Amino acid sequence: MRTLTVDLGDRSYPIYIGEGLLSKSGEYFLQHQLTTKSPVLIVSDENIAPKYLQTVVDSLQASGYQTVSSVVKAGEKSKSLDVFEEVMTAAIEGGLDRKSTVVALGGGVVGDLAGFVAASFMRGVHFVQMPTTILAHDSSVGGKVAVNHRLAKNMIGAFHQPAMVLYDVDTLQSLPERDVRSGLSEMIKHGLIWDEQFAYWCRDNADRLLALDREALTYGLTEGCSVKAKVVSSDETEQGLRAILNLGHTIGHALEAIGGYGEFLHGEAISIGMAAAAQLAVNRGRDRSIYEETTALLAKFGLPTTIPGHLNDEEIISAMLHDKKFKENQIVFILPVRIGEVEIVSDMTLDEVRQVIKQLKGEGQHV
Amino acid sequence: MRTLTVDLGDRSYPIYIGEGLLSKSGEYFLQHQLTTKSPVLIVSDENIAPKYLQTVVDSLQASGYQTVSSVVKAGEKSKSLDVFEEVMTAAIEGGLDRKSTVVALGGGVVGDLAGFVAASFMRGVHFVQMPTTILAHDSSVGGKVAVNHRLAKNMIGAFHQPAMVLYDVDTLQSLPERDVRSGLSEMIKHGLIWDEQFAYWCRDNADRLLALDREALTYGLTEGCSVKAKVVSSDETEQGLRAILNLGHTIGHALEAIGGYGEFLHGEAISIGMAAAAQLAVNRGRDRSIYEETTALLAKFGLPTTIPGHLNDEEIISAMLHDKKFKENQIVFILPVRIGEVEIVSDMTLDEVRQVIKQLKGEGQHV
Repeated sequence: MRTLTVDLGDRSYPIYIGEGLLSKSGEYFLQHQLTTKSPVLIVSDENIAPKYLQTVVDSLQASGYQTVSSVVKAGEKSKSLDVFEEVMTAAIEGGLDRKSTVVALGGGVVGDLAGFVAASFMRGVHFVQMPTTILAHDSSVGGKVAVNHRLAKNMIGAFHQPAMVLYDVDTLQSLPERDVRSGLSEMIKHGLIWDEQFAYWCRDNADRLLALDREALTYGLTEGCSVKAKVVSSDETEQGLRAILNLGHTIGHALEAIGGYGEFLHGEAISIGMAAAAQLAVNRGRDRSIYEETTALLAKFGLPTTIPGHLNDEEIISAMLHDKKFKENQIVFILPVRIGEVEIVSDMTLDEVRQVIKQLKGEGQHV
Repeated sequence: MRTLTVDLGDRSYPIYIGEGLLSKSGEYFLQHQLTTKSPVLIVSDENIAPKYLQTVVDSLQASGYQTVSSVVKAGEKSKSLDVFEEVMTAAIEGGLDRKSTVVALGGGVVGDLAGFVAASFMRGVHFVQMPTTILAHDSSVGGKVAVNHRLAKNMIGAFHQPAMVLYDVDTLQSLPERDVRSGLSEMIKHGLIWDEQFAYWCRDNADRLLALDREALTYGLTEGCSVKAKVVSSDETEQGLRAILNLGHTIGHALEAIGGYGEFLHGEAISIGMAAAAQLAVNRGRDRSIYEETTALLAKFGLPTTIPGHLNDEEIISAMLHDKKFKENQIVFILPVRIGEVEIVSDMTLDEVRQVIKQLKGEGQHV
């Protein structure tokens, strides 16, 4: 078991990563002085709840906690205000009060939804994350929680730090293979933006990670969370540095949006986005090796690095311009400098983006 | 014009109180370095918007701001998640971004609703309050924003401090008389909990305040906001001292709830609650003068100090026990020690509450 601390002054919290943690939930709750006098609400989804909800409930009850649960449908559609209201209803009917804790048992959707419930129920109660996907190692650090508006993703939310994160790697064993690859894409991103050694460790341990080796997962998740924790600690409310976490996300989000959130998993879309960022860096004069190394690393994980030909270039551009990351009409991109280091670029032109889309479709000239 | 600073470290902000402020909105915005590059959303209601929206829009536009507005129905029903979503839609369609400002132009309902939009749109944008009621002098200090859940009031919200409050006393001139009295009830409360001199000033200036004398209103609102600001500054997230602001609210909220939020205005209900608190203090051994002074002061403002006979005692008790202010089954009351000082009492018994209800109905024996 590894422990990592996200350093945020008063709001610092630990991430515990290892095997068999869910069955010790109650002990961790007591250790963190979460009161047994107020009910705990566990939010989960229909895929995860049958597998792990009872384990958590049993452990919490054995430690003296009273629990209620709210199980939502699996998938992005549950990040809506309607489902948010349903979970709030469960919290009120379950008798939660200001000293209560809300638990997110699941992946990123459950984490974001339950996190926004924790942030806003009675103006904020304790929050505990229990991620059950690899992708959630990203969203479980940083305190960003939100639901979607029908017009745009993650528009309604808060910054709300958890009291702790219990990351039980046993829950990852039953993940579908495509979700595994997609999740590892964010792990690789953390290497690419900050930690050359970790990026190369990912490359050299791709097979172990894809085989869900518990030791490799524990190490990789710890390092991935650690990068994110360092970035978040230095920029809690996303004023500057934190933007580097968006490597691959500018084009990635656009691809997700025009694919209707069905064609690409998040990690797949940002994999293509990271390849695009590397190509853009080369187009702007970086050595071509940055593109080759990036795409070779992603390919070792079976992740895509090209844009399918049937997607319309201008639709990608249009989706990108609608993305909330653009403030005051500046197009901000994160580009690699070398493996393990990136820079924030605010003067990207639409022509450069059009060019890279063609290049990633295999239509344009690679520089 | 008076200026008061709410001292909250990084989140400190000024309250400007005086005449003609709305027509200078743009200047205040510029002075507070709110960017002209991002659209401003003004939230108001159907009663207030026809009177003052254009004034604010004209002033902001003259200073270079682009504005969009969202006008909701007047009344408590607009503090719902549905209306919250509508305002979010206006924000997205209006092109607001992370540097934008949301303005609340109206009373407490608009302030709470727009404030929660500001707190959660893109995880938080700037917020400016422009209160148009006397009652809102209370809710415009402290950063508590929220919408209602159908099962309970103010269950979904945040602490989100404004960048500034522009309190234009000209807007108070058209308030209905009953709203004036109700608003002054919270002003009196601020005297009773913290400032003997101000409480007596209210008593001695009741006629000027009820006649909406601008100078008296400016002074009274400044002093009332000042008390609240001092309490909030020392307890931003309501861990302890801030509870004293709930003088009269324990029974007051119960009366509002069983009257279906129609029989009593908020200030009327807490006026009865303050009388009840004073009687409870006497029942526990304080000098009878505290009850007599409190009720005489409230009576000078035409505020009620008795419980109507047709209300059912046990329904009042039941509504009180459902109120969210009770954590871990303790009944917390704020009782006067003398005019200008209160204490927090956590060992109130239901029998004592039953007794005071009877006393305020004129049924029980006054001690």
